[in-house]
Amino acid sequence: MRYELYYWPGIQGRGEFVRLALEEAGVDYLDVCRNEGGEDAMMAMLEDGRVARPPFAPPFLKAGRHLIGQTANILRFLGEHHGLAPGDERGRLWTQQLQLTIADLVAEVHDTHHPIASSLYYEDQKREAKRRAADLRGRRLPKFLGYFERVLVRNPRGANYLVAARLTYADLSLFQVVAGLRYAFPNAMRALEAQSPAVIRLHDRIRERPRIAAYLASPRRLPFNEEGIFRHYPELDAGR
Amino acid sequence: MRYELYYWPGIQGRGEFVRLALEEAGVDYLDVCRNEGGEDAMMAMLEDGRVARPPFAPPFLKAGRHLIGQTANILRFLGEHHGLAPGDERGRLWTQQLQLTIADLVAEVHDTHHPIASSLYYEDQKREAKRRAADLRGRRLPKFLGYFERVLVRNPRGANYLVAARLTYADLSLFQVVAGLRYAFPNAMRALEAQSPAVIRLHDRIRERPRIAAYLASPRRLPFNEEGIFRHYPELDAGR
Repeated sequence: MRYELYYWPGIQGRGEFVRLALEEAGVDYLDVCRNEGGEDAMMAMLEDGRVARPPFAPPFLKAGRHLIGQTANILRFLGEHHGLAPGDERGRLWTQQLQLTIADLVAEVHDTHHPIASSLYYEDQKREAKRRAADLRGRRLPKFLGYFERVLVRNPRGANYLVAARLTYADLSLFQVVAGLRYAFPNAMRALEAQSPAVIRLHDRIRERPRIAAYLASPRRLPFNEEGIFRHYPELDAGR
Repeated sequence: MRYELYYWPGIQGRGEFVRLALEEAGVDYLDVCRNEGGEDAMMAMLEDGRVARPPFAPPFLKAGRHLIGQTANILRFLGEHHGLAPGDERGRLWTQQLQLTIADLVAEVHDTHHPIASSLYYEDQKREAKRRAADLRGRRLPKFLGYFERVLVRNPRGANYLVAARLTYADLSLFQVVAGLRYAFPNAMRALEAQSPAVIRLHDRIRERPRIAAYLASPRRLPFNEEGIFRHYPELDAGR
C-alpha cells in the first residue's frame, strides 16, 4: 500500500515530521500536494462532506481508506507499524509523551511570529512578535532543550536515543526541531547548544543516517523559508 | 491500584480533562496536590533526578511505578484501560485525533489571556490579549465548534457521541471545553451555540450522566476561576 501525505506544498511545517518518519521507514508514499494532485486535492478532501472522520487541518495521511490527522497521531501510527516505536505499551506511551512535548514547543515557535493571529500577516504583529520571541529565547527554549537533555542523559540505555536503545519517531522529530531552531534563531542557539550537548549529538547522528542523509540531499527536502513554522527573522533572534 | 493525579491544586486547568475521565470511569484515584501531599509533592516529583522518564509539566498520572504525562496521552491510557475508548486501532486513532484537536483549541484559549508569555501577568499583555481574543471569538471558535459539529453530524452511528455509539474520553473533553467557553466568553458563546446544536446537546447529556453529575455537585469539582485556562475577563468577551 502506498501512503498519501496531504500537506501544504511549499513548506516543511508540521508535515516535515511525517516526511522524516516516512523516509526513515523507507515506505512508499506520495506527497500529494507536491505532485499530481496539487493543493486542490487537499482542499477537496478537507471540504468533502462524505468524509465521515474528517481531519481538522493538514497534515493528514491516507492509509488505504483510512484518514489519520494530527501530526503526533500520524507518527504514532507510522511508528508502531514501521519499527519506529517500542513494542511495549509503556514505551509507546513514553514515546508519544515526548512527541506531544515536541508538538508544544513547535506551537510556541510558530507563535513567536504569529502571537496575535495566524490570519494576520507577520508585519501586523511584529511588535508583539518581538516580545514573544524574547520570552521563547530567554525562558522557553532553555526549558524545553534542558528537558530533552535530561531525558537523554537519564535514559538507562544510554544517551544515543530518547527512548531505550533504538531510534523512534521522537528522535527524528527532535532532529527536526534542532535543525529548525538553528535556522530561525542562529544567535540564540549558539548560546543554548553548549547546555544541551546530548541533544546536539542526537541531531548530528540522525543527520548522518543513510536514509535521512539521502532525503536531506534530495529535492524532496524543501528548504526552510519564511512561510513555515521555523522562520528566520533576524529581529526575533538574539543579539538585537 | 490507586491512581495518583498530579496537578496544580487551585485550578481546573488541563488536569480537569483527566479528572473527568477518572470520575466517569469510576476508578480509585488520589488528587495528590489537593490532599496530603500538596503542591510540594508534585514539585518534588518534577525535580527528582532519579525519575528516568520525567514529565515536562503537570498534569501527570502515576499508575503503579509508571508516570504518564501529557493530557491527551493520559486520556488515551485511561480510555483504553477503562472503557472510554474504542477497542479497534482505527477507532482509537480517531478518538486521539479528536482529543489532540481539542488540545489545540485549549492552548489557543489559554493564549487569549497570555499571548506574549505565560511568565508575565495578564495585566502586562492586556492590549495584546484583546486582539488575540477577538481573533479567537471571530475566527477560531467558529472554526473549531463548526468542526466538532460536523464530526457529530457525520458520525454514521448518530450524533450522540463523537466516536461510534459509545462515550469516549473525547466526549468528556468536549463537554469541558463547552463549559469552559461558556464561563470565559458568555456573550460570544450565545451567538455561537446556535450554529453548533449537536455540540451543545452533547454537553448537556454529559452533564447529566450520573457519575459526572455527582462529580460536578461535589467539592472535588473546583469552580472556574481567573487562574485557570478558561478565564472570564469581560474585556476579552464579545459585546465590548
